[in-house]
Amino acid sequence: MTADRADHPLAIAGREFSSRLLTGTGKYADLEQTRRATEAAGAEIVTVAIRRSNIGQKPDEPSLLEVLPPDRYTLLPNTAGCYSAEDAVRTCRLARELLDGHTLVKLEVLGDERTLYPDIPETIRAAEQLIDEGFEVMVYTTDDPVMARRFEEMGCVAVMPLAAPIGSGLGIQNRYNIHAIVEGASVPVLVDAGVGTASDAAVAMELGCDGVLMNSAIAGASDPVLMASAMRKAVEAGREAFRAGRIPRKAYGSASSPIDGTFF
Amino acid sequence: MTADRADHPLAIAGREFSSRLLTGTGKYADLEQTRRATEAAGAEIVTVAIRRSNIGQKPDEPSLLEVLPPDRYTLLPNTAGCYSAEDAVRTCRLARELLDGHTLVKLEVLGDERTLYPDIPETIRAAEQLIDEGFEVMVYTTDDPVMARRFEEMGCVAVMPLAAPIGSGLGIQNRYNIHAIVEGASVPVLVDAGVGTASDAAVAMELGCDGVLMNSAIAGASDPVLMASAMRKAVEAGREAFRAGRIPRKAYGSASSPIDGTFF
Amino acid sequence: MTADRADHPLAIAGREFSSRLLTGTGKYADLEQTRRATEAAGAEIVTVAIRRSNIGQKPDEPSLLEVLPPDRYTLLPNTAGCYSAEDAVRTCRLARELLDGHTLVKLEVLGDERTLYPDIPETIRAAEQLIDEGFEVMVYTTDDPVMARRFEEMGCVAVMPLAAPIGSGLGIQNRYNIHAIVEGASVPVLVDAGVGTASDAAVAMELGCDGVLMNSAIAGASDPVLMASAMRKAVEAGREAFRAGRIPRKAYGSASSPIDGTFF
Amino acid sequence: MTADRADHPLAIAGREFSSRLLTGTGKYADLEQTRRATEAAGAEIVTVAIRRSNIGQKPDEPSLLEVLPPDRYTLLPNTAGCYSAEDAVRTCRLARELLDGHTLVKLEVLGDERTLYPDIPETIRAAEQLIDEGFEVMVYTTDDPVMARRFEEMGCVAVMPLAAPIGSGLGIQNRYNIHAIVEGASVPVLVDAGVGTASDAAVAMELGCDGVLMNSAIAGASDPVLMASAMRKAVEAGREAFRAGRIPRKAYGSASSPIDGTFF
Repeated sequence: MTADRADHPLAIAGREFSSRLLTGTGKYADLEQTRRATEAAGAEIVTVAIRRSNIGQKPDEPSLLEVLPPDRYTLLPNTAGCYSAEDAVRTCRLARELLDGHTLVKLEVLGDERTLYPDIPETIRAAEQLIDEGFEVMVYTTDDPVMARRFEEMGCVAVMPLAAPIGSGLGIQNRYNIHAIVEGASVPVLVDAGVGTASDAAVAMELGCDGVLMNSAIAGASDPVLMASAMRKAVEAGREAFRAGRIPRKAYGSASSPIDGTFF
Repeated sequence: MTADRADHPLAIAGREFSSRLLTGTGKYADLEQTRRATEAAGAEIVTVAIRRSNIGQKPDEPSLLEVLPPDRYTLLPNTAGCYSAEDAVRTCRLARELLDGHTLVKLEVLGDERTLYPDIPETIRAAEQLIDEGFEVMVYTTDDPVMARRFEEMGCVAVMPLAAPIGSGLGIQNRYNIHAIVEGASVPVLVDAGVGTASDAAVAMELGCDGVLMNSAIAGASDPVLMASAMRKAVEAGREAFRAGRIPRKAYGSASSPIDGTFF
Repeated sequence: MTADRADHPLAIAGREFSSRLLTGTGKYADLEQTRRATEAAGAEIVTVAIRRSNIGQKPDEPSLLEVLPPDRYTLLPNTAGCYSAEDAVRTCRLARELLDGHTLVKLEVLGDERTLYPDIPETIRAAEQLIDEGFEVMVYTTDDPVMARRFEEMGCVAVMPLAAPIGSGLGIQNRYNIHAIVEGASVPVLVDAGVGTASDAAVAMELGCDGVLMNSAIAGASDPVLMASAMRKAVEAGREAFRAGRIPRKAYGSASSPIDGTFF
Repeated sequence: MTADRADHPLAIAGREFSSRLLTGTGKYADLEQTRRATEAAGAEIVTVAIRRSNIGQKPDEPSLLEVLPPDRYTLLPNTAGCYSAEDAVRTCRLARELLDGHTLVKLEVLGDERTLYPDIPETIRAAEQLIDEGFEVMVYTTDDPVMARRFEEMGCVAVMPLAAPIGSGLGIQNRYNIHAIVEGASVPVLVDAGVGTASDAAVAMELGCDGVLMNSAIAGASDPVLMASAMRKAVEAGREAFRAGRIPRKAYGSASSPIDGTFF
């Protein structure tokens, strides 16, 4: 509303963004729905599964770049579907080639087809290799605060802990861990995977996260474009609530001191 | 974004409102902060504790009506601080007089200074009397679905279950009950009391509530005006998410059927 | 283990009990299973739905009293299935007659076939009438701390707030309220309805409740006798943990002060 | 009660145990309290921090083995306080020497003094080395299901995911993950660290865990011996409830189908 209300922008690898909601591009009905939902979400960074989406590999088919032009959106190639460091590294190199030297990538190396949780040792190997090759790595990881810090020390430009399994819609299963990661981090922390509805995204931001990335929660909703709008507002609401400094939790409104969490 | 995205308005006692966030007017630093926060919240209905706020009783002192003029806001007199049906009825009559025949009131009859929970039998007595005298009663109640329905049958124009104790900031303690009230109600259901931060408000809306009323969560925040903006967005986000139809919760993203809640 | 470890007994209406687990008698496969489960639960008080169970009304059919003899168990007639004060009072009088002047009863007046929540105003009316007629009333109520106190003031010998809907197995939905009831009560507080598994019963006791009553959670388990044993141990475990004084919750083990619940 | 009620024993590395509660030996007032609490817990396996406890390193000082004799208890040396694979391996070798060739150890390699969370890459290195040297490794790990499976494949004889930070008393922060680990494991899964009170232990067992290890929750309670008894019963209760097959969660008792978790 006034100048003192303005938030500082989200800074990743030297670039600045006013939106803190990152969206995926899979699972939509068609490219037009992708375009409309991305717009309603107000996303500035959109992630693309290089192994599943056409961004030029198939010149004769419709390309995602037509509806999400790189001059307007920061494309974030991701390694979805990779189960080894080698596959992930190869996928990032392909993305760099297709996108004219683009180096910002989202690394995910999966460990399990059932949970789609990351494979931490393989993710470490891939991250080291990619950083060596000059990539700017945003890394999908578990909500383990020790590993989050390790990825930062290694040179990753953002850590992206999961809230819950990819596509599960379960919301943040462990607020403690997400909070501990935020407390220990100097690079941006973005919750990635598991968000189900608007309040989940707000909670992530209230815990101090710098942003949220989601795909299924929007694309899988009955009305994806409306849900994209909901998520945009929820991320902004959570961010503002975090900045505004919430009231303490008290057992009673009349109580003079905050509760110690003994029984809740 | 487009016409089909428009929500129907919140209708209370024949009046329509586009905002679903109702705010209180107590606990602010001064009238100017009250004005700015109310504006940032986008509130159209503001509730006033007749026993604590000057809306004309003291002609020589600054009046709330100067910053919240009745031609712009729907004033909702409330009976905060009343512990008996008689006191509550008397307070509503005074409000009607001060506000030139205004009949929409928020009834609260407290049962306990510690929890500030309502006294259900006294609330019933007061509601019956007020409805008899032509008031349009929005009733503060527990989250008991049976009583919520009873108040509706009695003629109350809205039921306002508590999320948690007034001023506690604990958020919705019993989602089950709030959802059960919504399922059984034909009049608007507005969560009243206990909201602490933005996600709490979003959750209320995602459960299907028609609106949220709050005071402490905004007025008690470190930056009340910014928190008011957060709450506005959170209520809109929760409403849109409710309308957009969230994805089901699944144990794994790859799972074909929703989880049955057995272990969460 | 040693004398100082002994708990004081549960005292209801002047009688003392060493077991704090009360069980129902419905929904079992047969009377023999009822007997074995009751024994495994270690229950001393068993509640009987007068409208559904034969305790002598039908002299030609098997009677519950054969497997649960009144000289060994304290029978607690209940008014399950009653939706009005009149029905409930009539049912209690019938029980007194069948049980030779027995006055200890569990009053429940339902308000809703869907949730099986109590009807508070009818419950008040029935309780007043029954107390007037010399009954000792244990009252099934919502988890509203104000009403719990009111029932105590009225002369009820125990208050029995619900954890969740009867038969739902959802566990304690609102720990805050149960705790607030315990804090404000001088008569025994027993959680009644909604327990699903052993940990739910333990939580009730850890919150300071004096006992737990359940039926579906045991009778509906795949192995009711084994679940009865589980519940017996869970109630004892929760009671002992309550008495033993748990460690405070801390954000980290190394932290010097308990957490204030701000982010959990 | 009868033969069919008997559980199969907990089997770790070829040995069988009837108790599923493992206890620590630190933080007690004195050795006599250690002895009494261990007995009240019914523990058969007790873990010993080799770097902090005297089991013979200091021949002139009182030894833990006097109150917990190895012919009665299975001692489980642990590497508490180690922050590198080298330190952990060295500590295990020392334990083997002190305990005459004992090979069963609990490996923990910490990554962070604040959270006391494990360092996964160092834990992998240490586990590989120890297994190579013939140790039987029970491994303290995060609640990551992918890593839990990896440790099993590597040859660890039990996986011990944390419930919450060591000593925090926060209880199981992520039931989803603990359940997913149990689903995927063939070796015993024991929750280690973070239990605060009896119900936390019961929940772990209800999720299907094979056992629970704790120290602070017992030693730090106001009455450690009574809390030890509570924990013994809670673990048994949770185990029996798991085996007995709980009722499904339903929105209403009268509902015909379990809830799908959409709104809880």
